[in-house]
Amino acid sequence: MPDDTAFDPLTEPLLSGDRRALARAITLVESTRPEDRARAAALLQSVADPGRRTLRIGLSGTPGVGKSTFIEAFGTMLTGAGHRLAVLAVDPSSTRSGGSILGDKTRMDRLARDPNAFIRPSPSQTELGGVARRTREAIALVEAAGHDIVLVETVGVGQSETLVSRMTDLFVLLLAPAGGDELQGVKRGIMEAADIVLVNKADGDLATQARRTCADYAGALRLMRKRPGDAPDFPCAMTVSAVTGMGIDAAWNAMQALARHRRESGLWDRTRADQNRHWFEEAVRQGLMARLTADPALAARMDDLGARVARAELPATAAAMVLLDDLASGP
Amino acid sequence: MPDDTAFDPLTEPLLSGDRRALARAITLVESTRPEDRARAAALLQSVADPGRRTLRIGLSGTPGVGKSTFIEAFGTMLTGAGHRLAVLAVDPSSTRSGGSILGDKTRMDRLARDPNAFIRPSPSQTELGGVARRTREAIALVEAAGHDIVLVETVGVGQSETLVSRMTDLFVLLLAPAGGDELQGVKRGIMEAADIVLVNKADGDLATQARRTCADYAGALRLMRKRPGDAPDFPCAMTVSAVTGMGIDAAWNAMQALARHRRESGLWDRTRADQNRHWFEEAVRQGLMARLTADPALAARMDDLGARVARAELPATAAAMVLLDDLASGP
Repeated sequence: MPDDTAFDPLTEPLLSGDRRALARAITLVESTRPEDRARAAALLQSVADPGRRTLRIGLSGTPGVGKSTFIEAFGTMLTGAGHRLAVLAVDPSSTRSGGSILGDKTRMDRLARDPNAFIRPSPSQTELGGVARRTREAIALVEAAGHDIVLVETVGVGQSETLVSRMTDLFVLLLAPAGGDELQGVKRGIMEAADIVLVNKADGDLATQARRTCADYAGALRLMRKRPGDAPDFPCAMTVSAVTGMGIDAAWNAMQALARHRRESGLWDRTRADQNRHWFEEAVRQGLMARLTADPALAARMDDLGARVARAELPATAAAMVLLDDLASGP
Repeated sequence: MPDDTAFDPLTEPLLSGDRRALARAITLVESTRPEDRARAAALLQSVADPGRRTLRIGLSGTPGVGKSTFIEAFGTMLTGAGHRLAVLAVDPSSTRSGGSILGDKTRMDRLARDPNAFIRPSPSQTELGGVARRTREAIALVEAAGHDIVLVETVGVGQSETLVSRMTDLFVLLLAPAGGDELQGVKRGIMEAADIVLVNKADGDLATQARRTCADYAGALRLMRKRPGDAPDFPCAMTVSAVTGMGIDAAWNAMQALARHRRESGLWDRTRADQNRHWFEEAVRQGLMARLTADPALAARMDDLGARVARAELPATAAAMVLLDDLASGP
């Protein structure tokens, strides 16, 4: 039980902000080896602090919208204002998209050398459940190491946005100007996670198109109901230029205004408590399922039953009952 | 084990389309008594038929959009065309919204008396997990009783749309004309589930506003990416009038075109197989969790740990490990 475990040798340097200790601690929570899992849980327990006040921002944007450039400009502004920033990446599909995000730190040259910024590329594993746990735990670690703002980046594929919106305080969607046939559309699930839509590249030839795209998204956001009790002006859409810096400070002001409103209304605390509870229940569910599938016979039985249910030969509930009966009567 | 169970006395009359047997079978799957659960599972198994070809339509619309009138007009058209229609309701919040949906059958006067239509109001329970199971099983039962089209109605609150979109073949969102300050917006999660947005009340004074609302939603839908491999013209927005009948046949044509495209592309079969597998895994997860919380000591332990995790005193993973250790070392 974590409470009884002696403090890990990483605890002290981690809490004092040692970057190598932080990097090692994240590597530890990324490991799936059982002994590392136990050590990681104890380490996370030893650095837990309910009073720690941080801001977690989810940032989604598909390749080509200028996300690295945006993070460089936004992050440099934050560290310049005295914040300590951590940038984490969630990329369950790095094998498919041909390269992990944040893999190329050269596009975040200044931020990568900034002592007040910590950038961690996504590991190369692809299992979504594991991604959620690792990312949540990496957030806890960078916060323990003194980073008061955490940016969690995602590439906008699959379900990663839902995951990230469940572990962050606000969600920013970064888009490029587009219109007519170019318009690819936003993946389902992302638009509704967005608190703030930023249309990037609002500079030079693209400025007009960026404003038009921004107006389109502002219109679409008006058709969607906002979260009960949330700030009246959100979700909103704004234009920015990561290259010229235009709008970056306004975007940060909007994020702060939304964060302030949520803190004052109590929505912030309720959301974090709900998120924590959700991940606890999810961890219990995954643990229970892992115990079941650790038995090769039950795992094979579950595969077989799942295939029959998929073909509609067996109803889902009946098949689940069969499996649970097998579990109960097992050795 | 369901496979070994003798056929239920309800099986035969249910398969021959007996309405009272169908109503009783649905009452059986709505029951949470363990002996009813086992009988329901066996009954569902006895009427399972992978070759049965049906169309499941999810329909979401908040009170006031004219949903009952729409179902009456749409349903009467379907039965007039030789279809056998079942209308089911998903309403996890009936206690809050002040009355279960479909509770007032008088607004569906013709359909309620139509021998080719079967209308089943939502039961008054409120637990979402139970709603999903009951609704899925009611779908299987009405289909076994010969209904080739199933309309699953939801009031657009909470997570019911996600549930319903996971058990239907296509999803229709019904809206009323609105603009400016009246615009309430669509609840997050619903817009994304929608394949077809229907703006109702496109008659008389509201016709112009309905067309404008329709154009607004058509614009918003263009900003969202469609499902990979789906028909090119979807999601789409159309105007209808449930009162005059205007557009009802066009809406049905659109639904059929989308269904045909999905059937021919293979998306239909893949989606149903994925849905079935999802509900099987969900049933296993719920069953495992139910076993854990059936032990009062473990249930209390889980509550306590959950509260501490919610307050950020304990990390989620560590707390889950503690609970699972307790389970393993239990009596």
